[in-house]
Amino acid sequence: MKTQYFTATSLDGFIATEDDSLEWLFPLGDVNDTGYPEFISKVGALAMGSATYEWMLRNSQKIAEETGASWPYAQPTWVFSSRVLPAVPGADLTFAQGDVRAVHAEMRSAAADKNIWIVGGGDLAGQFYDAGLLDELILQVGSVTLGKGKPLFPRFTPTPLSLLSARQIGTGFVELRYQIPARATKNP
Amino acid sequence: MKTQYFTATSLDGFIATEDDSLEWLFPLGDVNDTGYPEFISKVGALAMGSATYEWMLRNSQKIAEETGASWPYAQPTWVFSSRVLPAVPGADLTFAQGDVRAVHAEMRSAAADKNIWIVGGGDLAGQFYDAGLLDELILQVGSVTLGKGKPLFPRFTPTPLSLLSARQIGTGFVELRYQIPARATKNP
Repeated sequence: MKTQYFTATSLDGFIATEDDSLEWLFPLGDVNDTGYPEFISKVGALAMGSATYEWMLRNSQKIAEETGASWPYAQPTWVFSSRVLPAVPGADLTFAQGDVRAVHAEMRSAAADKNIWIVGGGDLAGQFYDAGLLDELILQVGSVTLGKGKPLFPRFTPTPLSLLSARQIGTGFVELRYQIPARATKNP
Repeated sequence: MKTQYFTATSLDGFIATEDDSLEWLFPLGDVNDTGYPEFISKVGALAMGSATYEWMLRNSQKIAEETGASWPYAQPTWVFSSRVLPAVPGADLTFAQGDVRAVHAEMRSAAADKNIWIVGGGDLAGQFYDAGLLDELILQVGSVTLGKGKPLFPRFTPTPLSLLSARQIGTGFVELRYQIPARATKNP
């Protein structure tokens, strides 16, 4: 069982524009050509921050057109937010806040022998990283620079990683998989 | 003949720390395992900004230990700076400032059928990009995040690139080569 931060990013390290748009991402390639289908088949629980969740709410029609459902995940999903957010009918959602370690323990139970996916954003992934709970970083690095936007690693301090694999996906993406070395857990 | 921005970068898009240190870079791998030896053999002229040049001046002893010479390039090199900088004895240096297009024409003549290497930093590479003079981007992406530092692309506007190749180099690097699509030259 691994906890993985799997995300698309621009070449200069932004996962979304400043206004949380992903429009730059879609022309770059087909998600089915990436490692996503195999990845998601091994995921037993998801966590996402409020900006990611609200992006999905805003884009539910587009998501339904592409995946057949306005909420595309069968797995239980934890949404981290300090605000009250609308729920998606039919989605297995738990709203959470506070220390990620307690929530991670719940997610482990739900995921059983499958993996935990930290969907994003970067701040939430950083909280799992800071708690010593992040095992892998899987990046779909798009062939585009954005110049500014929401950073992939807003909280990460200088961190050595270990590259496990690199795979070219057409001209629009390279898929990079990194192991995050085991480290002492920081106090919150 | 191509004009290429070849540089090492952290995974989150920084080519140096805020104080222009490259200490994070050296433990990641051996430059001779990368595409650098083949790359440099095809370079006929170099351009670099003042921060890059001054880094080389400060680190001449380390460079001499690693390469056998405190100035490691046989090719003619243009150093862009608005200040007067000390020259390195024996190096083929031209100090330049102003519009990169005039200097690029000089460099083309000097390079003959070989390539032009924009060594860095990101601002200088961006000036060549803005002038429509940059053909390729070749990145040694190190397996490390820095969180902050000197950006790879401080001036780049959202730019679609085309990934030509991706090659894993041990666990410390992936080498990515991008073609920069032909574009209309912006006015300065």
